[in-house]
Amino acid sequence: MLKFDEQKQLDSVNGALKLRGAVEKIVDGIVEQGYDSLFYVGIGGTYASGMQVVNYLSGNSLIPVYLENAAELLTNTNKKFKKGAVMIFSTVTGSTEEIVNVVRLAKERGVRVFGFIDKEDVPLVGMVDDCISYPGNEQLKLFMTAHRFMYRNNEFDEYESFYEEMEQHLAKALIEVEKKADTFGLEFAKAHEKDALHYFVGAGILWGATYSYAMCYWEEMHWIRTKSIHAAEFFHGMLEIVEKDTPVTVFVGEDAERPLAERVARFLPRICANYTVIDTKEYDLPGISPKYRGFLSHLVMHAVTQRIDAHLEQVSCHPMEIRRYYRRLDY
Amino acid sequence: MLKFDEQKQLDSVNGALKLRGAVEKIVDGIVEQGYDSLFYVGIGGTYASGMQVVNYLSGNSLIPVYLENAAELLTNTNKKFKKGAVMIFSTVTGSTEEIVNVVRLAKERGVRVFGFIDKEDVPLVGMVDDCISYPGNEQLKLFMTAHRFMYRNNEFDEYESFYEEMEQHLAKALIEVEKKADTFGLEFAKAHEKDALHYFVGAGILWGATYSYAMCYWEEMHWIRTKSIHAAEFFHGMLEIVEKDTPVTVFVGEDAERPLAERVARFLPRICANYTVIDTKEYDLPGISPKYRGFLSHLVMHAVTQRIDAHLEQVSCHPMEIRRYYRRLDY
Repeated sequence: MLKFDEQKQLDSVNGALKLRGAVEKIVDGIVEQGYDSLFYVGIGGTYASGMQVVNYLSGNSLIPVYLENAAELLTNTNKKFKKGAVMIFSTVTGSTEEIVNVVRLAKERGVRVFGFIDKEDVPLVGMVDDCISYPGNEQLKLFMTAHRFMYRNNEFDEYESFYEEMEQHLAKALIEVEKKADTFGLEFAKAHEKDALHYFVGAGILWGATYSYAMCYWEEMHWIRTKSIHAAEFFHGMLEIVEKDTPVTVFVGEDAERPLAERVARFLPRICANYTVIDTKEYDLPGISPKYRGFLSHLVMHAVTQRIDAHLEQVSCHPMEIRRYYRRLDY
Repeated sequence: MLKFDEQKQLDSVNGALKLRGAVEKIVDGIVEQGYDSLFYVGIGGTYASGMQVVNYLSGNSLIPVYLENAAELLTNTNKKFKKGAVMIFSTVTGSTEEIVNVVRLAKERGVRVFGFIDKEDVPLVGMVDDCISYPGNEQLKLFMTAHRFMYRNNEFDEYESFYEEMEQHLAKALIEVEKKADTFGLEFAKAHEKDALHYFVGAGILWGATYSYAMCYWEEMHWIRTKSIHAAEFFHGMLEIVEKDTPVTVFVGEDAERPLAERVARFLPRICANYTVIDTKEYDLPGISPKYRGFLSHLVMHAVTQRIDAHLEQVSCHPMEIRRYYRRLDY
């Protein structure tokens, strides 16, 4: 399979799950010290990852939790971002200007900062209160923090058994999703590589995935125009510009907001002949209990879209690592 | 001027400002009864209006406040949406299915509900705890609630003088904005009526206006494709698909997040020759203190975009009241 190293991906996911002990130690320390609220802070793709966690926590926890875009936080400076708050973030490079500056703001305000910083040798590591360095797997990392906070708040009794199941089966299950999705990925890439504009629709835990797949993958890496729209909003404006040939893809997950995406998927055939539904339900996850599938919809979808990306890059002759303007120009 | 009834608009805004006594009575009652958090709930355009208020409150108040999309709230059912919470919303028809159902959910959960329901004779009026019926001016209504809660929380000492100034000058000032923007509105409409896709960028108190102008006006009413993107996110993906001819409009306001929109406006000329900057600062607001202009940027922008709409409707021969699918089909 193209751009696919099974062992490397297994090791990557399993290695991330092994961070749990370190995550627990940090979260437990925060809980024992006391805290008022959690701020998941990001920008671009890391902001989208925060969307997923905060959506999940809204539906499942009473902990006061806020999602903040780093650039907005620096200017609007949320008044509740103060002593007692905990900032949680993840960054690959550790050098994104807005993230570095928000960490500075957090320290000035007495906010405790817990960062996942992939690179161990960047100055940002020395600026945060708590740090874990391990490459990739941002969603897993952020969800591990959320689940531990919930567990400590008596909101996730099955925490141990859930993670034991993940440690045993998740990495392999995601590999199986990629294998199954590969043919679809190639067909989809061929059908849509020349789209003038592609619409992505999603909801719930998949809304962050929808937003980031459109913006961080198709726009930033494939240079194809997109619009992402929340399924809850589709019927309040966007539907009017959908015609027979309009390319629309609906991400359907298995969490509480599934009915919102299903509604769009059910409606589209009446007005559009160029739509695609990607439903995580169609992918087996061997060893994973049905009740946990909703928590994992974003990981399943990511496994599917990875196959689109691998083929789209080749089909469109556009290497995903090139950038036209990003970090190429000063702005 | 096309589609412009000066006296009617003056009366409409002044009438909305006169609701303040009724708003105060309701908010004061809630404060005296006690509350834990505010939920601004909407869908489509009313969700966008909530974005503006919640963004403003984040930067200026310590009151726990949450923005919720009605359809998401019905499925994800935010756990914090419970006794002690106050739901605030605005609706024109009072018949939007998601809003009616959220009000039912609120009652089941013991959430106090304060609704602005334009129509007085709809069943929804009898379902809420507190209701004010007056047509239009949604933003003013929602901001009046926010300001009163802030005032009662000792976060807006100038409340009285601010509203006295608004009562004396706001309606007339917005009329002047429309008059000044009319020529621009016609030129913009002529230049962009045939756009295959138009990008709108905005931040802060204007992000809701940006999102809703793109979706509820251009998509829903003009049937022109758009993407709205937050200025904080522009440099994290979308910039890569901007080319010389790409139509991009930046909404620049005067609140704390102004620098984010300015940054995009400053950068665009290097990569694009088809951009427009609409800066609220270019519009005089006679009688309004400079320190209050930031609070009003969304109203100023709305006055400008109203002139675009009036002309775009005529130039494109597409009446704004027609809908292709919305409330025409079952879905």
